[in-house]
Amino acid sequence: MTLRVRDLDESGLLARIVPLLPTGAATLVGPGDDAAVVAAPDGRYVVSTDVLVEDFHFRHRWSTGYDVGVRAAAQNLADVAAMGGRPTALVVGLAMPGDLEVAWVEGLARGLADACSPVGAAVVGGDLSGGSVVMVSVAVHGDLGGRPPVLRSGARPGDVVAHAGVRGRSAAGLALLEAGAASPGDGAPGAAGPLAPFVTGFLRPAPPLDQGPAANAAGATAMLDVSDGLLRDAGRIAAASGVVVDLERGALQPYVAELLPAAAALGDAADRASDRALARALTWVLAGGEDHGLLATFPPDVTLPDGFTRLGAVRPADPAAGVTLDGMPPQTSPGWDHFHQ
Amino acid sequence: MTLRVRDLDESGLLARIVPLLPTGAATLVGPGDDAAVVAAPDGRYVVSTDVLVEDFHFRHRWSTGYDVGVRAAAQNLADVAAMGGRPTALVVGLAMPGDLEVAWVEGLARGLADACSPVGAAVVGGDLSGGSVVMVSVAVHGDLGGRPPVLRSGARPGDVVAHAGVRGRSAAGLALLEAGAASPGDGAPGAAGPLAPFVTGFLRPAPPLDQGPAANAAGATAMLDVSDGLLRDAGRIAAASGVVVDLERGALQPYVAELLPAAAALGDAADRASDRALARALTWVLAGGEDHGLLATFPPDVTLPDGFTRLGAVRPADPAAGVTLDGMPPQTSPGWDHFHQ
Repeated sequence: MTLRVRDLDESGLLARIVPLLPTGAATLVGPGDDAAVVAAPDGRYVVSTDVLVEDFHFRHRWSTGYDVGVRAAAQNLADVAAMGGRPTALVVGLAMPGDLEVAWVEGLARGLADACSPVGAAVVGGDLSGGSVVMVSVAVHGDLGGRPPVLRSGARPGDVVAHAGVRGRSAAGLALLEAGAASPGDGAPGAAGPLAPFVTGFLRPAPPLDQGPAANAAGATAMLDVSDGLLRDAGRIAAASGVVVDLERGALQPYVAELLPAAAALGDAADRASDRALARALTWVLAGGEDHGLLATFPPDVTLPDGFTRLGAVRPADPAAGVTLDGMPPQTSPGWDHFHQ
Repeated sequence: MTLRVRDLDESGLLARIVPLLPTGAATLVGPGDDAAVVAAPDGRYVVSTDVLVEDFHFRHRWSTGYDVGVRAAAQNLADVAAMGGRPTALVVGLAMPGDLEVAWVEGLARGLADACSPVGAAVVGGDLSGGSVVMVSVAVHGDLGGRPPVLRSGARPGDVVAHAGVRGRSAAGLALLEAGAASPGDGAPGAAGPLAPFVTGFLRPAPPLDQGPAANAAGATAMLDVSDGLLRDAGRIAAASGVVVDLERGALQPYVAELLPAAAALGDAADRASDRALARALTWVLAGGEDHGLLATFPPDVTLPDGFTRLGAVRPADPAAGVTLDGMPPQTSPGWDHFHQ
């Protein structure tokens, strides 16, 4: 018999998942009281929140509970990294229907743990609730280690624009799943087929979390995590800093090349060959969201930290702030909006 | 024409609500970047999270956006107070369907502000998402001011049991609305009819937030906020501390008396008069949830802080930890469970 959430009371469900949750050194009082207590050694903490809703951010036919746990953690942890901080603690709210399988919730906890453990972040508290659909809300916290936060507003003309992490894989994976050209199994843990990087990138993004504090230590002037697409998020740095972020097509080619197997699997290689495949891959690189790479600007004399690749340069706003591709307005439409999908 | 969420893009919606959100002195970096930065002057912070889901925690026919904002903030702020801390910062996730009125979301922001402003807590960040129903998730943070957190586990035999805040009002208000004996208008801001305290108490609970740090300063040995009913939550202190929490019926009578108008409005006064009304009111006092009063234990020699009323005493576990009423097992069933309503 399949054990479902409604077969357990709240304490029974907690007894199954709390032991699976990640623990961390910053936790002074963990789950079980009205609130947790977390260390903030430099007298400040970074905090952000992100929500995942069934059928808006994930679908049960593609994502397991484990996938959703990894993804919920990853996109939140990336927000702390994007401030130049190290993630320390998460609280997790979970609303769910009574017929949800308990194994799904246990998978969620394991996914949170596997995403958090490499950086030492703990789940220190949460809330379980009934709901007509599954909804996972995470608030994430981090420590700046005595450094200033890296905001979006500090880019200056002359700075180098650089990126850490993957580009376009999540969008490519989504396109493959939507077209039926790949199955979720192609992105299951341990899958090693040619489409595994894309489906895995969509189901369980892996942001470059160590690169956030590294960028901060190296003197990054601005940074954010790329959640809504490279052009759109670069535009946010441009707008906040009052500059032009100029990206160089040549620097984007390695990302484009990496996505060609996904573009080919969608049939583009067969008909009209490389032009359409290249265009599709470039669109994923420029407009694909949810990879949660880090886009940062650095003073021109800085040696980029490991993991960062130069993508372009910051120019004066002339006449307006914005994003250019080799100095020209980009032709690809930018990212997407939550309420108009 | 009614303006709905789908008529605006995300930045348009943010432009309307961010100016309405409460601000506070602990905010170092507020909304608008990947994450906020908040001061934690004593090198630690308290953190908790609570989720409200449409049709599980509120219904549109009873609660306005303003009501939901007050309630979402209040029940979270109470968790910080229950640790003996002062709330400083909230992050808020909001999932909602596109046909939700923008005025509802603006009301939510105003409700958050009105609940937070008296204690100086700020909304420092958030996330907006589509959703098939409205779901509000809040993570709340607070400052302990250098004092230890007040856990549930510190009650000792001989301690005084005391309570701050109202008891049973939320349950009475819910019963009145469910029976059609009161309308949401009876609890609208400024309503002053005989049923106003109950309907208001259900729609917009007002936890005694200042009493949390006051109890901590006075040396409280254990504390929690009463969210699931007095017996059930007293049982949590008893279990965590390994003691018996003995409540005295006589000390509960003022709460019972205050609820009699609500019991009478349900028809009990007319038929069989006082016995049934008294029994109903006592059940609300003992088992009614969502008032978010503070239940605390203090060493016997402590002068109770303003706002606290003595309810009983802590006894040794004999043989087991638990709750008694005048030394006897209570006959009223305890609180409720989220998955078996």
